[in-house]
Amino acid sequence: MIQERLNKILKLMSDMKMPQMIVSDSNTIFYLTGRWFHTGERMIALYINLNGNNKLFLNELFPVNQDLGIEIVRFNDNQEPVSKLAEHVEKDKPIGIDKTWPSRFLLKLMELGGGSSFINGSEITDRVRMSKDKKERELMRASSRVNDAAVDKLIKLISPKYTEEELGQMLMGIYKEMGAESFSFDPIVAYGANASDPHHGNDNSTLKEGDNIVIDIGCRKDSYCSDMTRTVFYKFASEKSREVYEIVKEANRRGIEKVKPGAKFCDIDAAARDYIEEKGYGKYFTHRLGHSIGIEDHDFGDVSSVNLDTVEPGMIFSIEPGIYLPGDVGVRIEDLVLVTIDGCEVLNKYNKELTIIE
Amino acid sequence: MIQERLNKILKLMSDMKMPQMIVSDSNTIFYLTGRWFHTGERMIALYINLNGNNKLFLNELFPVNQDLGIEIVRFNDNQEPVSKLAEHVEKDKPIGIDKTWPSRFLLKLMELGGGSSFINGSEITDRVRMSKDKKERELMRASSRVNDAAVDKLIKLISPKYTEEELGQMLMGIYKEMGAESFSFDPIVAYGANASDPHHGNDNSTLKEGDNIVIDIGCRKDSYCSDMTRTVFYKFASEKSREVYEIVKEANRRGIEKVKPGAKFCDIDAAARDYIEEKGYGKYFTHRLGHSIGIEDHDFGDVSSVNLDTVEPGMIFSIEPGIYLPGDVGVRIEDLVLVTIDGCEVLNKYNKELTIIE
Repeated sequence: MIQERLNKILKLMSDMKMPQMIVSDSNTIFYLTGRWFHTGERMIALYINLNGNNKLFLNELFPVNQDLGIEIVRFNDNQEPVSKLAEHVEKDKPIGIDKTWPSRFLLKLMELGGGSSFINGSEITDRVRMSKDKKERELMRASSRVNDAAVDKLIKLISPKYTEEELGQMLMGIYKEMGAESFSFDPIVAYGANASDPHHGNDNSTLKEGDNIVIDIGCRKDSYCSDMTRTVFYKFASEKSREVYEIVKEANRRGIEKVKPGAKFCDIDAAARDYIEEKGYGKYFTHRLGHSIGIEDHDFGDVSSVNLDTVEPGMIFSIEPGIYLPGDVGVRIEDLVLVTIDGCEVLNKYNKELTIIE
Repeated sequence: MIQERLNKILKLMSDMKMPQMIVSDSNTIFYLTGRWFHTGERMIALYINLNGNNKLFLNELFPVNQDLGIEIVRFNDNQEPVSKLAEHVEKDKPIGIDKTWPSRFLLKLMELGGGSSFINGSEITDRVRMSKDKKERELMRASSRVNDAAVDKLIKLISPKYTEEELGQMLMGIYKEMGAESFSFDPIVAYGANASDPHHGNDNSTLKEGDNIVIDIGCRKDSYCSDMTRTVFYKFASEKSREVYEIVKEANRRGIEKVKPGAKFCDIDAAARDYIEEKGYGKYFTHRLGHSIGIEDHDFGDVSSVNLDTVEPGMIFSIEPGIYLPGDVGVRIEDLVLVTIDGCEVLNKYNKELTIIE
């Protein structure tokens, strides 16, 4: 167990009067132990108790050779794992439940009376994970450095020779060469009108002169995610494209400018959104401004109009305004920002000036 | 909604006195609607009621252009979706819950009093999905035909030139060329002693003379999964390897021979396991004999010593005995079988005789 991180969780549990909780999310278990467990349909549960009686419930199919600093309770495929867990919980006290725990386990634990009440406990782990510690900040910077270099290589490869899907596949080679493990999400390389769908899946489209190209990519490096978007143009950019591009770029700047400790997420969203609305494109900016990121591409905490929470130093999230004119042009510009003592550090350094490739 | 499949579910709900249930698993929603929804962290819920008041609760981010034969209740990212669902459920009656539904939704539904009791309802959908209907049987045969042809191509590529990982990557190209969408699971190509770990992940190992090569591969074709294992040898096979190979092959045959309506899963497991034990290798056969397969590579229903259920026509599962001598040799031979009226049809036709490649 990484004691400093566990302590933050224990502190919040204590503040929230939650004496015990179950963590089952593999991301949070990695966060707390430094070790990945991918147990598929098989139960895994990290049981945390304020009294220090922590245990990891793990199927014996998954070997552990290092000392994780926590007692491991083993079971096999012929045993019902929730009964094992129920023997250890304090049945007369409330218990926090991981938000992603499959219902079959929770229903069984309830049937066995494994707690006086059952509460969604993930707010605790989510909030602790939102603020990145020193080691995490270094890893997030390193992941975004790889992403900056990768987008440069990818943009240089853009040509009518390659479909969107082929470029996406070539990106995997670029990342691997740079020491990343994998994509942090399916990359988007969207040509022309395809880019006006913010969730476009790469297909066999090829490039035409005047196309805008939205490139939304990220890798996972040493288990931490990067995520950035750039939009470039092929051969030329129409008047309309140029206008939209400059508005999005300014919205990205205004969003970033607003980021500092004490600002509300909704106000950061508004800084970018209000500008796009003022320019008459409000209804074409169809999504939230951003999302938290870390071990997961989408960590807990949106930069959106309904998030009234306040930004704190160490948080890392995306600022990604976009304008999507259906069937026509789509532009999105996305950076990751790390909240500092008095503002923010932009993790992506790659050029944002309007770029026309030949 | 595919009425015939829905009817089977309604019949079981009625038998089990479950007036209403929530299905959230994307596989079962595909099974019932013919449509895939991958909503990630966003809630999706197919609400089924014996009174015919069925509804699909779906975030408006996911467009539906065809008629799914079910009323769709929409919500957006700024709305709390479980409250919407709670307005529709019958609060004074028990409600079945999908086993994979994330706990955060279930806890919220409980908080809102969305049922008189909450029961793991997945046994109903699992059991219906275990028996494949005519269309599914055709799709499963087609997926395994692709797999048979793919393993042939892959075996012909085996050479000291390629690492395990490279062969695994080349397999993706083979599948795509044959019209499959993707792997049904990460393929295993394990050389020599690597094969003695039944869950070996492909790495940079290269081939040596005398190596056994375990090839455990499957594709997803038209959404249905294949899965087969063959073990071949490079240049020569040692005496020990030959002995182990023939025992596994005979265990595979005995398992398959046992498959017919009325047989118990545990007895099928025993038919293969007892033979391996009799030959003195019992402790080196470390996993269940097989698993059900269909829309998921691992459907509900294991072929294992603890499954006392009875086999029925239309069920499809794997028969995959193996012997793993740590650090030495590993052999597994796996076929999919479809239970017929009086026995079974083996979906994999690829050669199982001991094969030495040059």
